[in-house]
Amino acid sequence: MKFKRSERLIDMTHYLAERPHQLVPLTFFSERYGSAKSSISEDLTIIKETFEGRGIGIVQTVPGAAGGVKYIPKVNAGEAKEVIEELCQHMESSDRLLPGGYLYMTDLLGNPLLMKKVGKLLASAFAEKEIDVIMTVATKGIPIANAIAAYLNVPVVIVRRDSRVTEGSTVSINYVSGSSKRIQSMVLSKRSLKEGSNVLVVDDFMKAGGTVNGMKNLLEEFSATLSGIGVLVESENAEERLVDDYVSLLKLSDVNEKNKQISLKQGNYFQSNLTFLS
Amino acid sequence: MKFKRSERLIDMTHYLAERPHQLVPLTFFSERYGSAKSSISEDLTIIKETFEGRGIGIVQTVPGAAGGVKYIPKVNAGEAKEVIEELCQHMESSDRLLPGGYLYMTDLLGNPLLMKKVGKLLASAFAEKEIDVIMTVATKGIPIANAIAAYLNVPVVIVRRDSRVTEGSTVSINYVSGSSKRIQSMVLSKRSLKEGSNVLVVDDFMKAGGTVNGMKNLLEEFSATLSGIGVLVESENAEERLVDDYVSLLKLSDVNEKNKQISLKQGNYFQSNLTFLS
Repeated sequence: MKFKRSERLIDMTHYLAERPHQLVPLTFFSERYGSAKSSISEDLTIIKETFEGRGIGIVQTVPGAAGGVKYIPKVNAGEAKEVIEELCQHMESSDRLLPGGYLYMTDLLGNPLLMKKVGKLLASAFAEKEIDVIMTVATKGIPIANAIAAYLNVPVVIVRRDSRVTEGSTVSINYVSGSSKRIQSMVLSKRSLKEGSNVLVVDDFMKAGGTVNGMKNLLEEFSATLSGIGVLVESENAEERLVDDYVSLLKLSDVNEKNKQISLKQGNYFQSNLTFLS
Repeated sequence: MKFKRSERLIDMTHYLAERPHQLVPLTFFSERYGSAKSSISEDLTIIKETFEGRGIGIVQTVPGAAGGVKYIPKVNAGEAKEVIEELCQHMESSDRLLPGGYLYMTDLLGNPLLMKKVGKLLASAFAEKEIDVIMTVATKGIPIANAIAAYLNVPVVIVRRDSRVTEGSTVSINYVSGSSKRIQSMVLSKRSLKEGSNVLVVDDFMKAGGTVNGMKNLLEEFSATLSGIGVLVESENAEERLVDDYVSLLKLSDVNEKNKQISLKQGNYFQSNLTFLS
């Protein structure tokens, strides 16, 4: 069966979009469609231009026998700004304010379209880093970690507060929560992280950075390397920050419980030295 | 700026794939590309045929002023069989066996490509049901729920074992775990589920069904309706099943701790009355 160019373009777009950061040999496509490699190359040129022009991402072609094509999700600066503004608007509604000045974000973390956007923004920021695995802590970091993982195509490991029989042997550490100064523990299944892995640490909210710092300590136990830190919201009013090199989408600048006002602004996303699609 | 057909096909494919089950008006595309509606209609015919032919899904066009186009992710039977076989192979490796006959599955739940496939299979099974929200229980159900949500485009709500300050007011119930007969509790944030919602309940593993049954009881507290139950693995050797109408991808038929053997077979996926792409 022969495929027309239009069918190939549609199927290749879908195939690449489902498998970001994965090198697909051109022979795979030429066998899939019964087409000459030269036709596949022409298809990929059209896809590359459209992906870059429409803010979908970069299509890299790697020449040679071990070569192929790789889709790298990337955003353009305008889209990133829109998403961050959309997040701000969601977050600033006063009914999110919980007793103690906490913010209710569970609905946003459960919104698949919004999580796709967040995942793509953070995956875009870390696209050039070497990352073997994404680490987060249960429960609220998981949707963000999953969303980034879908765009970086790397596995997620989940650190827990307590150990479970279904995790097998675990490594446990104690750490000091940055803001409340309480001693807490976190646990990671021993087999979930290979020695020497490059790890992106992710969380939904960072105040002083105690939890993120705990994960950094945990990495040492596994002889793993920190590749980066990404958070959805950071709190501006942390007295003493335990973590400095991170990417945040939003910054919580003020919570006024009395007037029920929440103020957010852009995080440091645009200050991080990331490259955008033009 | 005018767009060529090839560029439109690529961008529309990507746009629809990111927004499944969402009605997109044709005017949206005709404005996006500066093209006549008739050209957009022709594009959609090509996309529709390719999506159906390549096992990507169904493209529904709804006529009229409030109409538009909707992408419904669907698998064909061959692809579903392949995914289930791949899962079986992953699961049957003897080093998954944990003390007490438990199975280590955390690595599979953290694998984004595998989770996309699982999510698409289960989203495909429930594509015709009315579903407003997907409910699961922390922690291991979350990646599956997120994966299905990405294909059904509905929010996820997460039931927890304990209540947290960041969840606001909660509703808590007690339930009897089916296999251990212990009394446990589960907690759901009050504002996370609207009254009258149609809910798909999802979990990674089901033995007697105590946890799933607990979630069913929780639905009653919210005057919500059960639309379906989906699990990754069910255990065949449950003496007394508390739940009957569910869809499972795999069935754990035997765990021999002495010989370190794990036997799995297909779940009831193909017996459920779901329609496949031909």
